[in-house]
Amino acid sequence: MWYIFLKRLERKLVMSKLAIAICQMQVENDLDTNLGTAEKMIDQAYRSGAELVVLPEVFHGPYQSELFPRIAEPHPGPSTDLLSRKAGQHGICIVGGSIIERDHDGYLYNSSFVFGPNGELLARHRKAHLFDVNIPGKVAFQESSALQAGNVCTLVNYRDLCFAVMICFDARFPEFARTAALNGAQMLIIPAAFSVATGSAHWDVLMRSRAIDNQVYVVAASPARNPASTYQAWGYSMIIDPWGQVLQQADTGQELLTASIDLDTVEQVRLEMPLFSQRRPELYVK
Amino acid sequence: MWYIFLKRLERKLVMSKLAIAICQMQVENDLDTNLGTAEKMIDQAYRSGAELVVLPEVFHGPYQSELFPRIAEPHPGPSTDLLSRKAGQHGICIVGGSIIERDHDGYLYNSSFVFGPNGELLARHRKAHLFDVNIPGKVAFQESSALQAGNVCTLVNYRDLCFAVMICFDARFPEFARTAALNGAQMLIIPAAFSVATGSAHWDVLMRSRAIDNQVYVVAASPARNPASTYQAWGYSMIIDPWGQVLQQADTGQELLTASIDLDTVEQVRLEMPLFSQRRPELYVK
Repeated sequence: MWYIFLKRLERKLVMSKLAIAICQMQVENDLDTNLGTAEKMIDQAYRSGAELVVLPEVFHGPYQSELFPRIAEPHPGPSTDLLSRKAGQHGICIVGGSIIERDHDGYLYNSSFVFGPNGELLARHRKAHLFDVNIPGKVAFQESSALQAGNVCTLVNYRDLCFAVMICFDARFPEFARTAALNGAQMLIIPAAFSVATGSAHWDVLMRSRAIDNQVYVVAASPARNPASTYQAWGYSMIIDPWGQVLQQADTGQELLTASIDLDTVEQVRLEMPLFSQRRPELYVK
Repeated sequence: MWYIFLKRLERKLVMSKLAIAICQMQVENDLDTNLGTAEKMIDQAYRSGAELVVLPEVFHGPYQSELFPRIAEPHPGPSTDLLSRKAGQHGICIVGGSIIERDHDGYLYNSSFVFGPNGELLARHRKAHLFDVNIPGKVAFQESSALQAGNVCTLVNYRDLCFAVMICFDARFPEFARTAALNGAQMLIIPAAFSVATGSAHWDVLMRSRAIDNQVYVVAASPARNPASTYQAWGYSMIIDPWGQVLQQADTGQELLTASIDLDTVEQVRLEMPLFSQRRPELYVK
């Protein structure tokens, strides 16, 4: 009887825990180089014990809107083939950061493909909020001139975990993260290439506040800062717990970031501070 | 002609600027002591040039839910009389932090009274999200056992400024701040008595993220930390600009915090990063 009890307890403990990794990879101009780096870092993450591996936004080519038509790929294509193969080979879940996706009609999207432990496609999130910004002398970018926007808040079930995928500018909108949490997300996975200007001002605060407000884990995956790039990504990828504590944070260079998280923490935090039962939707404007 | 142009320019410059002050006052058990401190600090704020003065949450008595029935006051009452008199005397706007208000039916609310430069009542915000929390060994509080909740997102117009008043736990809900911004708020004024446990974990991040997400000024007014109190308030009152930069921050003791803000900054930040036009309300759950 004790044996069965202990086995059940062990199973419960094991079920609620999950080893995750962020591959903060340096993105170059060349597709093959980028796929090689991604493969190497996914393998390294797997060897470290990771069961859920996250790549950064636009990991397959340079983050420059005028180059998007050139680097765009269909699905299936070289990037998603790699992600599917590695997920199946290692029996893990891979959130493939994002790629510029060309759909059957020729439209381009900034899309995150998620593959499960049998190499199967679990979900595709298309960035729903496009990055248009013009801060004189600091950063100017207009995704909406090159891309179409997705139309869904994307949730994924993997083992006992329900997570949402949001891409970069999606995370600027607290109502989008809230929508994910209200739909059941215990974790927000956010591949994101903030710039140096916006990253230094907002990266830590925004990522931590999404965790605190929604009492979820946040896994924010940036590319490494590549001194040779036109667009300087911020780096500083983070894994944050549902109380807003930073469990792990990278620096600016290429780095594998790992953490073991416990889904029971989500329940615990929500029990101690029951935010969701105190919402007043009748007072809110959507 | 130049004279008229310069006069118009000066008027525009002056119109968009506003000198604000937070009275981070130490709250004691005794009403008269607290009203004396509030009066002294409002006078001090006025002498420093402040045109908008903000007091902390429950500035008239101890923040202990079991004492709320004892410290509750009607309006008009001693606290609102003082606020009205000082606003009219100095020709300024006073956001009177909050008091425990007893209404005509005997119900209690955590209410912020706002008085204008003629001593007139501009608005009353009743806390709409009540503070219920139970973190073993750290902080336990249950406002909902003693108070009724307000039912409005409260906006106030003063000169060229439109601001919302939110009280403490109200600020935990990003959709409430968003509602205020969508209704026209350029500033969130947040009297708030975070505890040491929640303040150390969340105060800076939450206040800054409300500013960044909504591209508004945030004025967060805490009581000073009183070592003799049962409830240890966090302190660290802040004035934050619409880009999320902390313009001024207090320490834990009694302190007057002042800043001159420029409403044109709200427009400037919203022009450079047009978040509001990129919202996707059709994707959000309320």
